[in-house]
Amino acid sequence: MCIPDKIEISNAADRISSFIHRTPVLTSNSINQILDANFYFKCENFQKVGAFKYRGATNALLRLNKDQLSNGVATHSSGNHAQALALAAKINGTKAYIVMPSNAPKTKKEAVIGYGAHVIECEPTLEARESALQQIVSSTKAHFVHPYNDYHVIAGQATAAMELIEQTSILDFIIAPVGGGGLLSGTALSTKYLSPKTRIIGAEPAGAPDAFHSFQKGAIVPSRNPDTIADGLLTSLGSKTFPIILQYVDDIMTVDDVQLIEAMKLIWQRLKIVVEPSAAVPLAVVMSNQELFAGKEIGIILSGGNVDLNKLPFT
Amino acid sequence: MCIPDKIEISNAADRISSFIHRTPVLTSNSINQILDANFYFKCENFQKVGAFKYRGATNALLRLNKDQLSNGVATHSSGNHAQALALAAKINGTKAYIVMPSNAPKTKKEAVIGYGAHVIECEPTLEARESALQQIVSSTKAHFVHPYNDYHVIAGQATAAMELIEQTSILDFIIAPVGGGGLLSGTALSTKYLSPKTRIIGAEPAGAPDAFHSFQKGAIVPSRNPDTIADGLLTSLGSKTFPIILQYVDDIMTVDDVQLIEAMKLIWQRLKIVVEPSAAVPLAVVMSNQELFAGKEIGIILSGGNVDLNKLPFT
Repeated sequence: MCIPDKIEISNAADRISSFIHRTPVLTSNSINQILDANFYFKCENFQKVGAFKYRGATNALLRLNKDQLSNGVATHSSGNHAQALALAAKINGTKAYIVMPSNAPKTKKEAVIGYGAHVIECEPTLEARESALQQIVSSTKAHFVHPYNDYHVIAGQATAAMELIEQTSILDFIIAPVGGGGLLSGTALSTKYLSPKTRIIGAEPAGAPDAFHSFQKGAIVPSRNPDTIADGLLTSLGSKTFPIILQYVDDIMTVDDVQLIEAMKLIWQRLKIVVEPSAAVPLAVVMSNQELFAGKEIGIILSGGNVDLNKLPFT
Repeated sequence: MCIPDKIEISNAADRISSFIHRTPVLTSNSINQILDANFYFKCENFQKVGAFKYRGATNALLRLNKDQLSNGVATHSSGNHAQALALAAKINGTKAYIVMPSNAPKTKKEAVIGYGAHVIECEPTLEARESALQQIVSSTKAHFVHPYNDYHVIAGQATAAMELIEQTSILDFIIAPVGGGGLLSGTALSTKYLSPKTRIIGAEPAGAPDAFHSFQKGAIVPSRNPDTIADGLLTSLGSKTFPIILQYVDDIMTVDDVQLIEAMKLIWQRLKIVVEPSAAVPLAVVMSNQELFAGKEIGIILSGGNVDLNKLPFT
C-alpha cells in the first residue's frame, strides 16, 4: 500500500463507520469573541476510548483477513493507542497483546485489561518495548499495528478531518496536534483532497519540537528528551508520516506549556468539555499568534480527553 | 398566572426557542455498564451562561410588555441566575440590575458586568440582599425576576425536561437536582404532562436537606446553615415551587458530598464534559441506590457546568 488516496480514505470511513462515533463539532461565541476568529472544534475527546486513535486502530484491524485476524493484534503503547487497539480487538472478537512500560499509569493499564487485552510489562525504554513486542509477535503470530507509522492507521485518522470538513463550511485553517504524525498526516491528506484551499497547520509543544525541526530541515530529527505536559506528543515522526507532512502541511508552530495550559483552561471553561493537554496545543497556537488568525474560519481537532483528574495543571 | 399548564409550557418553549440552545442528550456505554442502567444526560451545562437558568430568565423577561421592559429587570443572586438574567437583558436590549453579596466570587461578578449589567454590592446576608433589591426596584422601576419562585421562570425551566422527553424514548425515571425548586417543579410539570408514567425524583445534597424534610413534612422547612460543595442548591423552596413538588414529585433523595464528588468524577471521566457539583447530585442518587434503579431507563438533568477550575474537589 502507498500513501492513501481520496478513495482509500473514503473507503476507510465506510469501513469504520459502524464502529466509531461521528463526533460533533462544537462552537463557542465567547471563544470566537475573545480570539476574534470563528472556531469549529472537532470533538475527538468524545470518540470511543476518548481519543481519535480509535479510528486508525479500527481501520487497521478491519483491513486484516480472517486468517490474519485469528492470531490477534499487538502493539506497544502506554497511551491512547493501547486502549484503542484493545477495544477494537475486543469488539471484533480477536485478541490484543499490548506491551506497556512498567511505569505506565495504573489506570491506563487497568483500562487496557478491562478491554480484555493481554498486557505484557517491560522496562520503560524504547529498546525494551520493541524487544518485548518482537517476542510476542514471534510467539503468537499476532499482527503488529503501529501507533502511527502505518498507512491504514493514517487513513483511519484522516476520517476525523474528513468529517470536520463535511460538518462545516469552508475553513481557512485546520490545525491538528503533531506527535508521531498519524493524525496530522491524515488530516493533511483529507484536507488537500476535500478542501484544497484550506491551510494545514501542525501544532507542537515547544518541549518536544522534533516535528518543527524536521519540517525546517526536510529530514526526520528524532525526539530527544521531550519535556512537556502534552504526554500524547512525545514521539518522533515516522518514515510514512513525515513525507506526507513535508509535502502537504503548510506550517508547524510550537507553543510552550504555559500557553497550552491556558488554552486547555479556556476550552474547559467555555466549551464545558474535558480535553487532554495534547488536544489544547492547536488553540494555544492561535492564542499565541492572534494577528495571523484574526477574522479567519478555523477548524481545530481536539484529539482526546484522557486526563488524570487528580493531577490537573490548573492553579 | 397560576401553575403553568401544558400549553403554557409549550408557549414558553416557542417563546425562548430562538434565544436558547436545544442542548444535546449524551449517553455513555461505560456508565451504563458500571451502573447497570441506561442513562440519558440532558446537557444544560452546554446551555448559554452554562446553566439551565437561562431558560427561565429568558422566558420571564420575554413575558414583559414594552413598557415594563423599558425599565429593565432586577434580581439578587450570586450564582447562575445572575448571569442568566444579565445576558437575557443584554440580548433583549434592556438593563439588568443585579444585587450580589460582597463575598461572591470575583469571576462571577466580572461575568455579570461583562454582560453589561449594573452590579450592586451588599453585605452577604439575605436581609441585606432583599433590602438592596427593594431599593433598586423602587428607584428604577425595574421588574424583579425571582430566581425560582415565579411561574414564568418555572415554565422556562420546564422546557429542559420537555426537550429531554422529546429526545428520548420512554423513561422510567427523570432525576433533577433541587435547590429552590425551579428546575424540579418545572421538570415535574413537563413530565406529568408529556410522560405521565415516568417517575420524578428530586436529588438533594445531605448537607442542605430542606427539600427532603419539607417533602416529608408536607410544609416548607427553611434551609438552615447548609453545608455542601453543591453551591447551586443551598436555598429554601418557595411558595410557588413547593406545592408543585409536593403534588407531582415521587420522591426526594439525598446524598452526601463524598458521593456527589464521586458521581461528578464519573461524569467528567466518562462523558468528557465539565459539570458543576450541583449537576452531579442526580447521578450520585443512582450510585447510592443501585438496586432501585437497576435495568431502568433514566433521564438525568445535568443542570450546569460553572466551576472554578482552580478549586476542584478531586484528590
